[in-house]
Amino acid sequence: MTDFAATKALFELPDGVIYLDGNSLGPLPQAAGKTVARMIEDEWGQMLITGWNKAGWMGLPTGLGDRIGRLIGAEPGSVVTGDTLSIKVYQAVASALELCPDRRVVLSDSGNFPSDLYMVDGLLRSLGSDYELRVVAPEDVAAHITEDVAVLMLTEVDYRTGRMHDMKSLTELAHAKGTVTVWDLAHSAGAIPVNLSGCNADFAVGCTYKYLNGGPGAPAFIYVAPRLTDRVRPALSGWLGHEAPFAFDLDYRPGNGIERMRVGTPPIIQMTALSAAMEIWDMVDMADVRAKSIELTELFITRVEATCPDLTLASPRDPAQRGSQVSFRFAEGYAAMQALIARGVIGDFRAPDIMRFGFTPLYIDAQDVENAVKILTDIMTNRLWDTPEYKTRQRVT
Amino acid sequence: MTDFAATKALFELPDGVIYLDGNSLGPLPQAAGKTVARMIEDEWGQMLITGWNKAGWMGLPTGLGDRIGRLIGAEPGSVVTGDTLSIKVYQAVASALELCPDRRVVLSDSGNFPSDLYMVDGLLRSLGSDYELRVVAPEDVAAHITEDVAVLMLTEVDYRTGRMHDMKSLTELAHAKGTVTVWDLAHSAGAIPVNLSGCNADFAVGCTYKYLNGGPGAPAFIYVAPRLTDRVRPALSGWLGHEAPFAFDLDYRPGNGIERMRVGTPPIIQMTALSAAMEIWDMVDMADVRAKSIELTELFITRVEATCPDLTLASPRDPAQRGSQVSFRFAEGYAAMQALIARGVIGDFRAPDIMRFGFTPLYIDAQDVENAVKILTDIMTNRLWDTPEYKTRQRVT
Repeated sequence: MTDFAATKALFELPDGVIYLDGNSLGPLPQAAGKTVARMIEDEWGQMLITGWNKAGWMGLPTGLGDRIGRLIGAEPGSVVTGDTLSIKVYQAVASALELCPDRRVVLSDSGNFPSDLYMVDGLLRSLGSDYELRVVAPEDVAAHITEDVAVLMLTEVDYRTGRMHDMKSLTELAHAKGTVTVWDLAHSAGAIPVNLSGCNADFAVGCTYKYLNGGPGAPAFIYVAPRLTDRVRPALSGWLGHEAPFAFDLDYRPGNGIERMRVGTPPIIQMTALSAAMEIWDMVDMADVRAKSIELTELFITRVEATCPDLTLASPRDPAQRGSQVSFRFAEGYAAMQALIARGVIGDFRAPDIMRFGFTPLYIDAQDVENAVKILTDIMTNRLWDTPEYKTRQRVT
Repeated sequence: MTDFAATKALFELPDGVIYLDGNSLGPLPQAAGKTVARMIEDEWGQMLITGWNKAGWMGLPTGLGDRIGRLIGAEPGSVVTGDTLSIKVYQAVASALELCPDRRVVLSDSGNFPSDLYMVDGLLRSLGSDYELRVVAPEDVAAHITEDVAVLMLTEVDYRTGRMHDMKSLTELAHAKGTVTVWDLAHSAGAIPVNLSGCNADFAVGCTYKYLNGGPGAPAFIYVAPRLTDRVRPALSGWLGHEAPFAFDLDYRPGNGIERMRVGTPPIIQMTALSAAMEIWDMVDMADVRAKSIELTELFITRVEATCPDLTLASPRDPAQRGSQVSFRFAEGYAAMQALIARGVIGDFRAPDIMRFGFTPLYIDAQDVENAVKILTDIMTNRLWDTPEYKTRQRVT
């Protein structure tokens, strides 16, 4: 049984703050500062170039990949970290498209991150005008998986509402049509149990600065199903994805297994911060996280609906359909969120009217939820959001 | 006049080490550990998500770009940092190709980084079988700039020998044929004065973990000539290159100026380490660095040739043709380099027979050169490299 009081004690949480925005940027694992400072002084400072081998820097991308892999149901050796989520989306979709050389359509939905759509749009423009990015409403995805679709690219948990796609059934449906799947786990990894292997997923990508608490700009990750890896041509064919990176051959030969999805020199300082965060994840069972997350989100919804009648639930009511976040609609949601932040309850706002709250059992408990609701209720009941200051302040990301 | 004793005092250099490998990984600026620890504790820890605005994280990619820009003759607002050099090469070449839509050839040379060639190979395979990566000998480049060449991609300073291409004349020649240029400055930025603007260069890329001392996996940078930026379509069209990243529009619109070459969420911890390194560069005039670098490399060559007859100079003898490094050929160069490293002189080895030494005036002085030569002479005179241990040890990168 995961000890959430123990995990909470391992985070730095500022006094007077209830942090319900871990789905944007996870808070600081207390060990991260010292771990990074030690790496900088003892490894970079003392080992210099030899740190790549002596300090094990070169093994960080796959080592961290395996630690994340445990949380998302990935086979050992099937996940590697590096770059940004945008780059990993590009890599995954570019490789997936080549597995269906006779098709030209990437199917996605309007609930996906705009950033994922931008990357695919850019890729397809490079590939030629016969390629198409087809974006449908989230509820229409299943009906649009037709035999001209090369790649189905979906984000499992909607970043605005927390609505979840059914990875298993959509993957099955895709495979029945000969379509390759790319799953974005940005709001899944560390939020809900994911079973990539059990769902027979093809590609998956995600970031580590949200629920995984890797720090601002922490590296992304990519998963390729082991049954596919050897057939995958890396479009971003970097030297660290080469079969022999230090041979300095002029010709590219893809590396073994997931290593081929490495691109350039890995960001060792960021990866060291992420390592500190993964120490906490190594203590955790995702089933416990899910159970606790549902308990917290249910409590929040029940309490808010009882005391804040102006807020309308935007997330699915059924916890099985919902990630680890709760969103409410309110026309003046931007101002209300500013008022909340001013009182120490940090959530975020997504246009046009979504107030979004992330629930992260590693460091948020039921008492935090009760306290947050009390402040929200006060703000809503007494219209504390209704001041020019909150209405015009520049939006915090 | 740059005070190199003052800059040297700002680096952490391990006792007993003469570090002639700053062209692989620059040493630790003493302030970096504390600066990064402070950012982690005070910004990530206390500001959480609001750090993106409050702590100025969002401005780091362009802010650092401008500080690097001063060293490479780039106009303010024409350089942005992020990702890895491999990604930036891909971005630059992909965009450059679209400026010459009727041509299908990328010309490069066999003195380029294999990693750059790999990335372009991957890009061209994605674009189609009518594209060609044409690789010629470095001395044959000028003759091969023909009217079918879309992009000339060269690394200014050869990573093995230090031989320099003439950026100004090759760029002129390229432009006369309607060819767009992409310059890799990995061994130029912080090593030699570069004048991108004066050379009328189109695109340039580089890394910051070599001469610029940004730390292992520090972000790369990309330059686009201001006269071209508005015409450039970013193939890696990420959300941070969007005109309005926080509007979450479903359609991509490229950002203003160099901002469009941003891709995903920037690695703030790495960028903070790089900021600490740039504090030292802000004290430095590149003309002084060049003068001192020539003094050090000339001293090294003269002394080594006088005392180590088995070593053959692989770098150009004329300092005007040479970057800030000196390479010697020796059939047992690998073993000799291991013997050097064991005695505290850290250079590196590049197959098949190149012993490479980087000279970095910010923290290497004439006394270091004399001391390094003394140890090298001892090793060569007494064949101290000739032991099974040095001959078989796995190569350090």
